[in-house]
Amino acid sequence: MSPLRIWLVGFGTVGRWLASALDSQAERLGSRYGFAVRVVGIANARDGFAYRADGLDLAAALAAAAAGRPIGAQRGARTWPSAIEGLRATEADLLVEVTASPPADGEPGLAHMREALRRGIPVATSNKWPVALRGAELAALARERGTQFRAESTVMSGTPVLSTLTEGLAGAVPVALRGVLNATANAILSQMASGMSYERALADAQRAGLAERDPAADVEGPDTTAKLMILSALVFGRQLRRDQVACTGITGVTGEQARQAASAGQRIRHVATLALAGPAGTGAVTARVQPEAVPAGDLLAGIDGVNNAVVCRASPVGEITVIGPGAGPQLAGQGVLSDVIAIARHRAMRS
Amino acid sequence: MSPLRIWLVGFGTVGRWLASALDSQAERLGSRYGFAVRVVGIANARDGFAYRADGLDLAAALAAAAAGRPIGAQRGARTWPSAIEGLRATEADLLVEVTASPPADGEPGLAHMREALRRGIPVATSNKWPVALRGAELAALARERGTQFRAESTVMSGTPVLSTLTEGLAGAVPVALRGVLNATANAILSQMASGMSYERALADAQRAGLAERDPAADVEGPDTTAKLMILSALVFGRQLRRDQVACTGITGVTGEQARQAASAGQRIRHVATLALAGPAGTGAVTARVQPEAVPAGDLLAGIDGVNNAVVCRASPVGEITVIGPGAGPQLAGQGVLSDVIAIARHRAMRS
Repeated sequence: MSPLRIWLVGFGTVGRWLASALDSQAERLGSRYGFAVRVVGIANARDGFAYRADGLDLAAALAAAAAGRPIGAQRGARTWPSAIEGLRATEADLLVEVTASPPADGEPGLAHMREALRRGIPVATSNKWPVALRGAELAALARERGTQFRAESTVMSGTPVLSTLTEGLAGAVPVALRGVLNATANAILSQMASGMSYERALADAQRAGLAERDPAADVEGPDTTAKLMILSALVFGRQLRRDQVACTGITGVTGEQARQAASAGQRIRHVATLALAGPAGTGAVTARVQPEAVPAGDLLAGIDGVNNAVVCRASPVGEITVIGPGAGPQLAGQGVLSDVIAIARHRAMRS
Repeated sequence: MSPLRIWLVGFGTVGRWLASALDSQAERLGSRYGFAVRVVGIANARDGFAYRADGLDLAAALAAAAAGRPIGAQRGARTWPSAIEGLRATEADLLVEVTASPPADGEPGLAHMREALRRGIPVATSNKWPVALRGAELAALARERGTQFRAESTVMSGTPVLSTLTEGLAGAVPVALRGVLNATANAILSQMASGMSYERALADAQRAGLAERDPAADVEGPDTTAKLMILSALVFGRQLRRDQVACTGITGVTGEQARQAASAGQRIRHVATLALAGPAGTGAVTARVQPEAVPAGDLLAGIDGVNNAVVCRASPVGEITVIGPGAGPQLAGQGVLSDVIAIARHRAMRS
């Protein structure tokens, strides 16, 4: 079978990890999963879109990106000023969208994904906000065009949760969900159980490279909100607007509160909750993100440090829990790689 | 697209639950997953194999089975004395194998699965021993013929663990695994934490319908051994013989031991362990099943009652845990249903 031709839009940490994994693991992917890939397009915000129909030189593109040279400066590559122009002008079998679009409108990531799906080309993405804002629309568009829309790494990075709750539980009806979805906030709250102040736990997390200098996205809740919106759209088929998620961050939690909870056998966790009213979850959706004192017997109490967890209640199964690391660039890359393999396997079966 | 024609071999609790789910949920399966099914063959040990090319009447077959009448006694059905004869003589798009074959050789389930796979027909099964004994061979045969071999419900019933660890983690390399894989043994050990004797906890589980009158398969370890062999074959690609799993049951655990462990913050669990030596898990496999005192901070300590869990370490992800109910006839049916949907989706993409 001909190689899977990939557009790789986004060439930051995740995109480069993926390019280098596809390059170095080509033999294993071939023998284990029966397919070969050819990255025909690469784009980033600085250099625009580079394309070569018989495959770009990944090692050269990685070296260029590392040295701050244009990624398209290689033999035989054609270039366009922006990703969307390049996508419109060229052909591929898969769009890997690993940029990070802003919460306001999810653009330009959303436009990239719509362009591919409309043409029946599958999409694998780690780009949270386009999926949070328009996941239900993107999934419906993919179904309508007989192709796949996959976003595994948007929720728990390399820990498989979307595929588990949709494909693994196919046939069951999900009715409610709780989770701890942000590694940084959870690491900070885990530290605070000993009575450490929020400020000091945050500073520790920043020193460890676990929190950004501006930690708002992680500690005030928008990142968790986006992930809850993604779960709602892709697992429950319910598109939420951001203002439908009641969100309180962890910045108001004191070390004393965390210590008191711990001494009572509880743990304060930043809990995301989704509940569907009515029979078989056909009614209104309630969605919230807030710090909660979780009792010792609750699985979420045992989720420490950078681990994340989702507990999903489904009919007729009951409660299914998935736990795993929720952050890390190579883990996000691994999540995208699992999506690429799922898409390649479908393509192999089809041919 | 034409309906997916199913051979349903095994018409006990799981087979009947599935037949009735396919019948009553036909509309939802069509609208949600885009396919229709037609059960063209049904077999059980007592009545042999019944076939009707344009679909058997499921309601009639269910009523016949409930009343102890032959399942093939319906208009237009042809019959054969055994499943294997019927399979050889007829056509379908999927074999659902939900009999329970014995540990000695996994027959006749193994013969049913080989017959389908050799003809390029996918298999979904809940039949543990054929997969435990020959899972690697069956998976290789499916790959060679470009079809699927799926056995989700063999390990944790309706809780998705095989799909999560193979498809969800596709691209990563699994290197070790621990789990609590038998609901009955775990429920008994959970009761014993208060100091209750093994005998009394077993009698309680028997009264609750959770343990068989002859509980050996659950409490002495063969069921957990089979599940560990399945995980080894299908997740790690390593076929084990039964004598390669060192197995100790829970019958020797005393209430006093369980109570003492609990008072030290530990829990006794029946733990299945798989470890691969060497770089990237290329070396020898160590497999064992035994009662272990698990420390409080270990996720397995929190797995109570009929819940089961698998903790899998993979490179580059780290530890992924899946927790959920591990037993129940409708749950096993749900696990098979998820496999049927996965196979139907592949078929839809191919057409």
